[in-house]
Amino acid sequence: MLIESARQTSARMQSFYCSDDIFALDMQKVVTRKWLLVDHINRIPEAGQFFLYEVGQESIIVIRDNDLRIHALFNVCRHRGSLICLEKHGKHKRLTCPYHAWTYGLDGRLKAARFMPDDFNQEENGLFRCHIRVHHGFIFLNLSPGEEPEFDQEFEVFEPHLDFHEFADAKIAHRESYPTNANWKLVVENFFECYHCVPAHPEFCSRHSRDSLIAIGAGPSSGPTDAVKRFAPVLEKWEKQAAKLGRPMGTVDDDEHSENMKSYLQRPHRSDIKSETQDGQPVACLMGKRTEFDYGRMCLSFNPFNQIIACNDFAVLIVFTPRSAMHTDVEISWLVDGRADTVDIERMIWMWDVTTLQDKIITENNQRGIMSSRYQPGYLSNQERRVATFNKWYLNQLEK
Amino acid sequence: MLIESARQTSARMQSFYCSDDIFALDMQKVVTRKWLLVDHINRIPEAGQFFLYEVGQESIIVIRDNDLRIHALFNVCRHRGSLICLEKHGKHKRLTCPYHAWTYGLDGRLKAARFMPDDFNQEENGLFRCHIRVHHGFIFLNLSPGEEPEFDQEFEVFEPHLDFHEFADAKIAHRESYPTNANWKLVVENFFECYHCVPAHPEFCSRHSRDSLIAIGAGPSSGPTDAVKRFAPVLEKWEKQAAKLGRPMGTVDDDEHSENMKSYLQRPHRSDIKSETQDGQPVACLMGKRTEFDYGRMCLSFNPFNQIIACNDFAVLIVFTPRSAMHTDVEISWLVDGRADTVDIERMIWMWDVTTLQDKIITENNQRGIMSSRYQPGYLSNQERRVATFNKWYLNQLEK
Amino acid sequence: MLIESARQTSARMQSFYCSDDIFALDMQKVVTRKWLLVDHINRIPEAGQFFLYEVGQESIIVIRDNDLRIHALFNVCRHRGSLICLEKHGKHKRLTCPYHAWTYGLDGRLKAARFMPDDFNQEENGLFRCHIRVHHGFIFLNLSPGEEPEFDQEFEVFEPHLDFHEFADAKIAHRESYPTNANWKLVVENFFECYHCVPAHPEFCSRHSRDSLIAIGAGPSSGPTDAVKRFAPVLEKWEKQAAKLGRPMGTVDDDEHSENMKSYLQRPHRSDIKSETQDGQPVACLMGKRTEFDYGRMCLSFNPFNQIIACNDFAVLIVFTPRSAMHTDVEISWLVDGRADTVDIERMIWMWDVTTLQDKIITENNQRGIMSSRYQPGYLSNQERRVATFNKWYLNQLEK
Repeated sequence: MLIESARQTSARMQSFYCSDDIFALDMQKVVTRKWLLVDHINRIPEAGQFFLYEVGQESIIVIRDNDLRIHALFNVCRHRGSLICLEKHGKHKRLTCPYHAWTYGLDGRLKAARFMPDDFNQEENGLFRCHIRVHHGFIFLNLSPGEEPEFDQEFEVFEPHLDFHEFADAKIAHRESYPTNANWKLVVENFFECYHCVPAHPEFCSRHSRDSLIAIGAGPSSGPTDAVKRFAPVLEKWEKQAAKLGRPMGTVDDDEHSENMKSYLQRPHRSDIKSETQDGQPVACLMGKRTEFDYGRMCLSFNPFNQIIACNDFAVLIVFTPRSAMHTDVEISWLVDGRADTVDIERMIWMWDVTTLQDKIITENNQRGIMSSRYQPGYLSNQERRVATFNKWYLNQLEK
Repeated sequence: MLIESARQTSARMQSFYCSDDIFALDMQKVVTRKWLLVDHINRIPEAGQFFLYEVGQESIIVIRDNDLRIHALFNVCRHRGSLICLEKHGKHKRLTCPYHAWTYGLDGRLKAARFMPDDFNQEENGLFRCHIRVHHGFIFLNLSPGEEPEFDQEFEVFEPHLDFHEFADAKIAHRESYPTNANWKLVVENFFECYHCVPAHPEFCSRHSRDSLIAIGAGPSSGPTDAVKRFAPVLEKWEKQAAKLGRPMGTVDDDEHSENMKSYLQRPHRSDIKSETQDGQPVACLMGKRTEFDYGRMCLSFNPFNQIIACNDFAVLIVFTPRSAMHTDVEISWLVDGRADTVDIERMIWMWDVTTLQDKIITENNQRGIMSSRYQPGYLSNQERRVATFNKWYLNQLEK
Repeated sequence: MLIESARQTSARMQSFYCSDDIFALDMQKVVTRKWLLVDHINRIPEAGQFFLYEVGQESIIVIRDNDLRIHALFNVCRHRGSLICLEKHGKHKRLTCPYHAWTYGLDGRLKAARFMPDDFNQEENGLFRCHIRVHHGFIFLNLSPGEEPEFDQEFEVFEPHLDFHEFADAKIAHRESYPTNANWKLVVENFFECYHCVPAHPEFCSRHSRDSLIAIGAGPSSGPTDAVKRFAPVLEKWEKQAAKLGRPMGTVDDDEHSENMKSYLQRPHRSDIKSETQDGQPVACLMGKRTEFDYGRMCLSFNPFNQIIACNDFAVLIVFTPRSAMHTDVEISWLVDGRADTVDIERMIWMWDVTTLQDKIITENNQRGIMSSRYQPGYLSNQERRVATFNKWYLNQLEK
């Protein structure tokens, strides 16, 4: 019992949430070792377009070259170390350092450097590359310094779902930022349980049946076992209908020993909710291979740093980016089908915008409370099993 | 001589005023071990009313329950550590955590927590309590983690004075904050000598005879011995008259070996000053058991973190609250008799408002100067004996 | 080759630019050991006038006494350590501490302190003095705690040049500040090469021939050897003409083993440029002993913390002052001849104002890029030899 309790709580000690040293360890052992889903390719459709992905103290240029391939390059000149791109996004024909005009191609190769000594090797002085994968329209970065870590096998299980939604052809309809003054693990823990949904998220809850919220509000294993069992027949009935309409079935629920703690879950909304909007009515055309509304939604997570949540006509990509021990960037991109002509932005963003603002405040108050000498990790409810799993997973990453 | 000098200065080295490590030590060895006078009960007269007392990184809810008893509860949910009360003061029927709605009674007991496992013991999960004493209308907190430290015997000596002023029935007429960017010990040292009064506080000085300022400007032993002697006959004469009008006599002047360095002193104002106002005239009815103006004032300090200073018709409670190595909250509450109908706020606050603003600026410049590599503790004047005593007392606390 | 490369880069590791510990070492081993040129005497022409020189966490009062001698005094009261002068500049009859009114003469001697004990020695409690030298109108401070370091012999080589410009009688015509969020060594490195001039400073470059920029854009040895050789005949021709007009000749180019890495260089502007203005025309009368325009300029540096750059009718004094690991004050004073009646300020400041603003932005982006884990010191161009020399010189200072 004591050991159980220690295991359950040990990743939730105060210092894990506020120490600069532990943040440095998190960067080294977790953040820079994972495939981070940073954005959708539709952010930079044209040659030369780029955006900066900033995590911890790193700045990475994600840029499309003239063959429309996307590169990820550390935003640090190989000469004296200046930032090269100063704007958060834009378009360039080449990458010219504003300091001494060392000029790199859109693929990061050094093209020109004036007055260099004879033994200077231009080919060895390209921008440092960050591992990158473009997969079903999503851009993944991996900041690890060595060989490119495995990708395909790890995420193969998501293939039918990503394919069904046709994310590769999706469009970004809107984007919002929610900078949060809290440690990234508090942001993740908040997202990994729906125990707080009833008190804190009335708008979110109004879209779901109570049973659904309790059983699987925050992912496959987030609710108490008996509630999951109680909700099972409702889920089963909906799954049959949805499958008939072409939706691929299946659940992913990685445990604490997994590499990514990835997850996949789909379930019905409240019976009258076609789309995750205030009136339940759609804001855009059906997404992907769908031909009819099935009143359902799905949540897909490659790892704790991202979430894709889709109803029938739009999806949100939620990205958590650690910046320092007590600051995390939270960014949401709303995606619609590539064929969508008109999108009702205001109605589309309603639920996730209000919910994420609520989570920002909740999480910041959590951080402030944890600074007390009297804070100690408390008992978790039956609706927070994924928080316990996440904390064990996190400790496992540190011990790798 | 050298040893004397070393003892006199050793608590005034630069690092004692700016190091985060020493601030942590101060919190552990001094701040959390003392009975801190934090406010007057009149701040929260009704059931459910609360205010937050914030010291260092701690936040404590001071709240009145339905039986009108006052509790002090650490503002940290026992579940995941969120702050529970977010406003600085207010009124609640119960304490509900904004995160997952764990609900506590006004006495801190856990009343409701949804979906908890079977082995969860609700009684063991109340809010952590802070030691609290209500004494003559004043609320004292003690943040030490163990048993409640002794109170009654230590402060028994103040009984007749507190009783004479009838603080238990006083009312708060006004409140102001003076956040000060300086270490708490610089704030205390500033208050423990009146050597700076003549150059820095013309308004304050205009209320007092020059002899009185020099002899006992900042407490019983604050002035040079010969000046104290010179002022003695004036004081003696006034004491006789004041005693006739019912004022209890006596002086308290704890030394550096004491637990609290507490002090008590009373003395006459300038002979035409009835009240500590610009025209010397009262702003409210007589306070406490008085029947006539005796043209005097008293200073009472439970320990270096607070001062009560009373003339005949109002009193100020000055509270110094350490927040970080170089930041201290200074708050003043003006108290009047419970039966006071009308109070002239502007005239009442004149002297202490202008004087405390002056002290804020003085102390902040002291902090800035101390950051120089050339700073070294200097010789103290004969009017600063209590500064030397305070520094020895402080060192004694660290060695306990 | 490897050793060469290590030597070339070793002072440019990330931590040298952002660590608080290394900044403390820089203060101890470099900044406080050098003669810092802080201002021109014309800043404080009258008795009692002062300005504060603030470096690191130090504040120094530079003040003229009634005999018009200039003193440098640590701005820390010997009593309790308060700042004495609170304004950046002003005029005082005496220096009175705002806390307890200890009063010092304009030479720093303690004049009055009330109520001090009998054994208090007033003469031993003057303000701590900072070494000061006034030389050709320039004020030099040396913050080292011991004996005054040697000055005359070290800087004797500059005598004819300082004399020719008659800086002792110059006037300050204008002053601007450029606070820069970067380590002081990045600010210096930026100034010690002109490799960045072509891409970053179009206004500056428009005043010079291309050959001149490449060969000696940033000091005597700043360009590639072959370019220096190519520019030599042009330089030689101009030198002959300038010498005829009375300009003293010579070059100073201290190496990495020197005490100050001081330098002196003069060269022609573009052939139609009389003065460093947008139209090439003068803004004031000729400076110093000149009788005719010689279309040239000079750069003189006592050490890496200052630069004097003069064309025929005005000069700039550029001062770099380290404040913290990632903040440096940059201040420019424009000097004109003491006999100058009218000065066209706007035209005079054009080039150095725009150029220094450009350098501020460049250097801040350099600092930000260096924070990346992928930053590593890169290859230097042939135009950056003085950067390499500076880094070796800096390491030599640390090892002293």
